[in-house]
Amino acid sequence: MTTATLSEFDRGIALTPHAEEPGRYEAELGDGWQIGGGINGGLLMAVAGHALSLAGDGHRDPFSISGYYLSASRPGPATVRTETVRRGRTLTTGTASLSQDGEERLRVLATYGDLDALDGEVATSAQPPLMPPPEQCIGVEHAPPQFIEQAALLERFDLRLDPATVGWALGTPSKSGRIQGWFRLADGRQPDPLLLLMVADALPPVTFDLGMPGWAPTVELTVHLRARPVPGWLRVSHATRNLAGGYFEEDCEVWDEAGRLVAQSRQLARAPRPQ
Amino acid sequence: MTTATLSEFDRGIALTPHAEEPGRYEAELGDGWQIGGGINGGLLMAVAGHALSLAGDGHRDPFSISGYYLSASRPGPATVRTETVRRGRTLTTGTASLSQDGEERLRVLATYGDLDALDGEVATSAQPPLMPPPEQCIGVEHAPPQFIEQAALLERFDLRLDPATVGWALGTPSKSGRIQGWFRLADGRQPDPLLLLMVADALPPVTFDLGMPGWAPTVELTVHLRARPVPGWLRVSHATRNLAGGYFEEDCEVWDEAGRLVAQSRQLARAPRPQ
Repeated sequence: MTTATLSEFDRGIALTPHAEEPGRYEAELGDGWQIGGGINGGLLMAVAGHALSLAGDGHRDPFSISGYYLSASRPGPATVRTETVRRGRTLTTGTASLSQDGEERLRVLATYGDLDALDGEVATSAQPPLMPPPEQCIGVEHAPPQFIEQAALLERFDLRLDPATVGWALGTPSKSGRIQGWFRLADGRQPDPLLLLMVADALPPVTFDLGMPGWAPTVELTVHLRARPVPGWLRVSHATRNLAGGYFEEDCEVWDEAGRLVAQSRQLARAPRPQ
Repeated sequence: MTTATLSEFDRGIALTPHAEEPGRYEAELGDGWQIGGGINGGLLMAVAGHALSLAGDGHRDPFSISGYYLSASRPGPATVRTETVRRGRTLTTGTASLSQDGEERLRVLATYGDLDALDGEVATSAQPPLMPPPEQCIGVEHAPPQFIEQAALLERFDLRLDPATVGWALGTPSKSGRIQGWFRLADGRQPDPLLLLMVADALPPVTFDLGMPGWAPTVELTVHLRARPVPGWLRVSHATRNLAGGYFEEDCEVWDEAGRLVAQSRQLARAPRPQ
């Protein structure tokens, strides 16, 4: 299969193993994944996560993955170097470093396993976010033009935001610190663990809903993959409770169409500067 | 100052720089920090976090720190090796590896800064956990003997649990997935960022409140330090919402006596095996 027949997302995270250096992969960060001038942090996590999936020697699913963002990335070639920290029977821990022109963009530490090997027990008290069906939600074609033109990646998405959490697009943010909606890829590519890594950072920053429309750079993002998603829509919620000292946390949940909480993530980000 | 004059916690995280190898430190994991036969994961995080604080070249406070637990530690000597990943103007990112007898116990990735340099703005919607005052809470002297005898570290703590969340100690867990209480060190040592790293993993596992009394090994723990704590009691809450497939997340909040949310953490842990 050539990359031309792959989905947009699979082309976006495609890796070429280096001929001589084990654990080294070459990537091409496409300009279709830009947001605000850099490459979306979730896509970078999926690229690094993909490399660890190849390097994990049979442990292909990120159970927990932590990314620390070091410098702003840009479209073009990137190199990912992986290293196994410890290989266990059910879990393998490794690190990945994504760099461009010798400058490190992202350092990752992660533990991989096999989601299919988990027992089926579910005793979850969490409830999926309540929102109207996708056809009653708001497509990003209604977002402010100055937002869309800086977010090429939105063209890759079929994203339908809950009307209750898009007041910010009309100048009346709810101030509740919450953005949620339905997510799928525009080209029909179905969700899997690597896609969930991107989805954890795919919605507009939750600070939009606090009336802070600027850019919110991620310092650290940790994603826990809790189950393999079934095909179909994903429900995604972003929320923050603690904006202080110029930083905020963003908690994300991703639910699949079977009603399963498939991913939980938290990031620490810098609050946007007042505009 | 010799270690003999230090508090129990400062002795517990004390480090001796290696004479010839920059970034290498020797520690002694005291048997007073054991829980269930191993050393408490929060104490290990504080030891590794201490090393990064020394290595951070002026950036002494962990803003975000992620620890991946690789093998069970035991009392005795340990070596911590640190490496700077990137030094920036306001934040420094580094890694630390804690090992015993050449076997790695914990790998850490973290970003450090200066909490005192943050602006004083607070726009937090989170509320501190509601609980009775310390004198109406339950000291661990009331915990089941089989719990206390496996948890030497409890002698280091003055921990007062909210009566509403200690039903598990009497055989009637609330099943709400929540344990909370007041925390301070028994010897009067006041809280600081390194202590908060331990506090994030200091309470009994929240699965006790789900009626699962066993050991819950941490896979990954990320702590965000959001403000420097004032002296006095800390309020600590642990909660879980998603127990599935043999794993659960544990979210922790730590509030100081000034009513400030000083730390937020989340860990992914293995659910206890049925007993």
